[in-house]
Amino acid sequence: MAINQGVRPGGRSARVQASVHKAVQELLEERDRAELTVPLIATRAGVTPSTIYRRWGDLSELLGDVALERIRPDAEPADTGSLRGDLLAWGEQYMEETASVPGRAVVLDLLAAGGGCSGRCMAIACGQFDIILLRARERGEKLPELDRIVDRLMAPLVYRILFSGEELEVAYVERLVDLTLEGL
Amino acid sequence: MAINQGVRPGGRSARVQASVHKAVQELLEERDRAELTVPLIATRAGVTPSTIYRRWGDLSELLGDVALERIRPDAEPADTGSLRGDLLAWGEQYMEETASVPGRAVVLDLLAAGGGCSGRCMAIACGQFDIILLRARERGEKLPELDRIVDRLMAPLVYRILFSGEELEVAYVERLVDLTLEGL
Repeated sequence: MAINQGVRPGGRSARVQASVHKAVQELLEERDRAELTVPLIATRAGVTPSTIYRRWGDLSELLGDVALERIRPDAEPADTGSLRGDLLAWGEQYMEETASVPGRAVVLDLLAAGGGCSGRCMAIACGQFDIILLRARERGEKLPELDRIVDRLMAPLVYRILFSGEELEVAYVERLVDLTLEGL
Repeated sequence: MAINQGVRPGGRSARVQASVHKAVQELLEERDRAELTVPLIATRAGVTPSTIYRRWGDLSELLGDVALERIRPDAEPADTGSLRGDLLAWGEQYMEETASVPGRAVVLDLLAAGGGCSGRCMAIACGQFDIILLRARERGEKLPELDRIVDRLMAPLVYRILFSGEELEVAYVERLVDLTLEGL
């Protein structure tokens, strides 16, 4: 899938991408997701359908690319002064964003787009954890492995949001963070 | 969503359901999932599109219903003689089935169909865990809470299968089972 990396900012390619992404986002606000088609998006973006097929392959890859753009954090994770606090703040914000109707739709688009997109979604979360771990190291705190944060905090949160159909509580995030830091 | 429960076996309703499910499964083998439409399925099943809309609501609910049917276990989980062995056997089989291309597609269909289907998917797994826990109780073993099995075994497995893009190993399932039984 063609993605942002390597696109010269301000070049024609970047303008096409920005215009197509904007068209998708507008259409997602106006219509049911099942109604979106490549020709519809192309018309709104002012490009030809073949431009979209050439660049993104198909609709699900395009929707995955737009979803990736939406989950890319605009800031570093909150610095609360402790590893536990940082993980809690991350988990609460993640839960709030992902458990919403548009948040869930974004995750489904990432998954439907296949391996590349869903892998990059995990990499984005891991990038946030890396920053949190680096800070904890500088404070001299004991560090969990990155894999442990994925298995004990990230995975149960995502699983329950996607599958349980129940609203999660902050106390649940606290239990997961405790499990992540247990026995360090 | 209309589901199996309450459908009189052998009645007209059950015949329509069987025929529509079969049509979906055949078409999924022949075509790309994105090509499936309600009229196409209706023609193959020998029913009218409105029969499908009336009964399932829309395409994604129908695909979710078929996916639920596919994940419904045909047997009790393997009885290996110990709780640890039973959880390991469950995890290995689950990993094998879900990490396959059709297995992943089934999970995506369940998620796309929304709350009802994905919740029922979790309930089916929990039903298997209940059987495993009941056996362990009869053997006099110490029991983990059901939630602990979901958070420490089920969730990381599903998360890694859906998001990591890496092939999981049996040793990974073993680590998750150990974590599930830790400190009991």
